[in-house]
Amino acid sequence: MEKGDKASPSAPKSRSERRREDTRRRLMKATYEMIARRGLEGLIIQDITEAADVGYGSFYNHFSSKEAIVDAVIDAALARSHAHYERIHAESADRVEAFAMELRSCLEESRSDPVWGWFAIRTMLSGPHIRLAIAERLKRSIEGGIKAGVFAVEDAEMARHTVGGLLLLGTLKIVNNETDAAYPEKLVHTALRALGVPAAKIHNALARPLPELGSAPFLEAA
Amino acid sequence: MEKGDKASPSAPKSRSERRREDTRRRLMKATYEMIARRGLEGLIIQDITEAADVGYGSFYNHFSSKEAIVDAVIDAALARSHAHYERIHAESADRVEAFAMELRSCLEESRSDPVWGWFAIRTMLSGPHIRLAIAERLKRSIEGGIKAGVFAVEDAEMARHTVGGLLLLGTLKIVNNETDAAYPEKLVHTALRALGVPAAKIHNALARPLPELGSAPFLEAA
Repeated sequence: MEKGDKASPSAPKSRSERRREDTRRRLMKATYEMIARRGLEGLIIQDITEAADVGYGSFYNHFSSKEAIVDAVIDAALARSHAHYERIHAESADRVEAFAMELRSCLEESRSDPVWGWFAIRTMLSGPHIRLAIAERLKRSIEGGIKAGVFAVEDAEMARHTVGGLLLLGTLKIVNNETDAAYPEKLVHTALRALGVPAAKIHNALARPLPELGSAPFLEAA
Repeated sequence: MEKGDKASPSAPKSRSERRREDTRRRLMKATYEMIARRGLEGLIIQDITEAADVGYGSFYNHFSSKEAIVDAVIDAALARSHAHYERIHAESADRVEAFAMELRSCLEESRSDPVWGWFAIRTMLSGPHIRLAIAERLKRSIEGGIKAGVFAVEDAEMARHTVGGLLLLGTLKIVNNETDAAYPEKLVHTALRALGVPAAKIHNALARPLPELGSAPFLEAA
């Protein structure tokens, strides 16, 4: 999020500062959309600057390399996803409910915004960075639930892979328009059953509406 | 497999026929490797002919378009995979054992040949063709097992997605070298548990060694 725009009107940004931020944001947005469409492989700076309508040379005023802009975009996406996680856990003290919301929000985000879904899938495929960050969070939630006695599994690692695999395949089906509106809840039900949660408890855990979740900073209007 | 090379030495191919087949095979192999590396997006005929060391114009003696060579490569991959399936089911009359072998062979193929694993992952991501063909086969095996009473699940569709998700995520971990040699059996154990198979039965189903499985026609030496 851009700091200060509204919070400190006494120190407005100069026109050149705003322009600079706008250029940076357009470059990141173009990179994000290009990754969603084609993956990280074959990403070319010139394609990014053309899509962003920015001069090729200006790119280097903002990023030192293709890798630098990819890292910035992935970091922004992870920060967005982490903010959702914090928000959900702040709103629900029930571990099963909070975990159900985590999974549902992942799936609903891809459903309401397929570009985001494709971005998540392609980055998970192209490199371990995003996939391992998601795996780390799944691990924290699932192991926390096992310790607290709300999840009961034979093999904690394979339970994580079961849930992660459902998320990955489910997202792929969602962005390909192969599912209906009931699918995210069905998938979460299946994931929670795989974690040994009784059906009645799952029913309650799915009852609360999802909080509104904001978009990635580089997707906001300037 | 090339017909006749050894089976009917009385009708040898002419030199020009052999050359033509060799060129076609090199084009398909280059396409296959390029898809494994970068996916279907951004595939360019000139890159294929350069990698295959074939003149650009010659491409059109063999394939009418980029789409035509991609279809030919995917069809060859599916034919290979289908042949494995038939072979496994011919060798084992036990449904659980045969299904365990199907899953293990998928994973072991990616393990012993990461190019194959990447090819499978990238084609699954880039279009529904291969993914739906695999889903169709999983469906046949799982529904057959449910009818025969060896699988017991709450929701047949979600059971398929659980197994499919494990296969997809497992393959991704295997080609990224994140797993050890015991992983395929562990994954298959988890998949069979998700299908309601008792642990003792799974132990037996995993005991038989996998049959030797041949490579795709375009990967064979000329």
